[in-house]
Amino acid sequence: MSTETLKHKIRDIPDFPKEGIIFKDITPLLADGKAFHLAIDQIAEHFHDRHIDLVVGVEARGFIIAAALAYRLHAGTTLIRKPGKLPYKTHRTTYALEYGVDTLEIHQDAILPSQRILMADDLLATGGTMTAAIDLITRLGGDVVGVAFLVELLSLQGRARFKDREVFSLLQF
Amino acid sequence: MSTETLKHKIRDIPDFPKEGIIFKDITPLLADGKAFHLAIDQIAEHFHDRHIDLVVGVEARGFIIAAALAYRLHAGTTLIRKPGKLPYKTHRTTYALEYGVDTLEIHQDAILPSQRILMADDLLATGGTMTAAIDLITRLGGDVVGVAFLVELLSLQGRARFKDREVFSLLQF
Repeated sequence: MSTETLKHKIRDIPDFPKEGIIFKDITPLLADGKAFHLAIDQIAEHFHDRHIDLVVGVEARGFIIAAALAYRLHAGTTLIRKPGKLPYKTHRTTYALEYGVDTLEIHQDAILPSQRILMADDLLATGGTMTAAIDLITRLGGDVVGVAFLVELLSLQGRARFKDREVFSLLQF
Repeated sequence: MSTETLKHKIRDIPDFPKEGIIFKDITPLLADGKAFHLAIDQIAEHFHDRHIDLVVGVEARGFIIAAALAYRLHAGTTLIRKPGKLPYKTHRTTYALEYGVDTLEIHQDAILPSQRILMADDLLATGGTMTAAIDLITRLGGDVVGVAFLVELLSLQGRARFKDREVFSLLQF
């Protein structure tokens, strides 16, 4: 199964979540066992020699990519969530969206200093959420050695926000 | 690493999400790569000869267990989400909670008839959410061949709601 075949399993949904947006729906790819396995293997392959301790996923679709990558890489996984969802003491960050702001939280003890971290999410658009997530990890002393996405929307140039970090996306549109 | 060691990686958080509840926090187990890998392997082992096509996870922590199990079992994964999160046409179910009601959604094309489904979530408490999730799957023609949890709270007897289905939990409290 080629990368081109995997791309055909991403479905365009017009006008979601609002008019004028064409949403990239990854659920057909996830539902295909062979495609899902191959996608995770190919992302993991890119980082297999980076000695990843933890794969960090951002709620909620990011958890899917992060958990499967963590299993594959024999790493742990850590959750970055919307406010009020994590049960223990948290750090939080608030960041700007196109309209308004959003907030993310992480457990204060989620990362040990110098742990090698792979950030993971399903989709790179403008990169705002991932930038905020990386901010949380670096505040806790984590060493972000890479950023992985299943899908990247090239026209939004989100990749530019990560400067000298290693960013890998499997499927580009 | 023994099951007893895995149990010690589940942390009690008093009074979350409300006073009087002792929340079982699975994040220390997830963050330990060896523990996470072993937990997934042990759950997968229980269902490895059941020819699972899809592992279904319930938002949001369920996605972590479902995605890693799906990868391990070479199956796909499908999402059951809170209302308004899924981009394509959905079916929904509304079910009673201790106080009030909650609603879950699934894509109308998420399951092919007769696909063999493993349901997965992090925690079995009263079983209300999982019962609603199974209802969605069976409405779409899926064959629910098992229900898997990382943690089961025995005192709440949620298991009784699943009658003759095969229910497996790795860690019991």
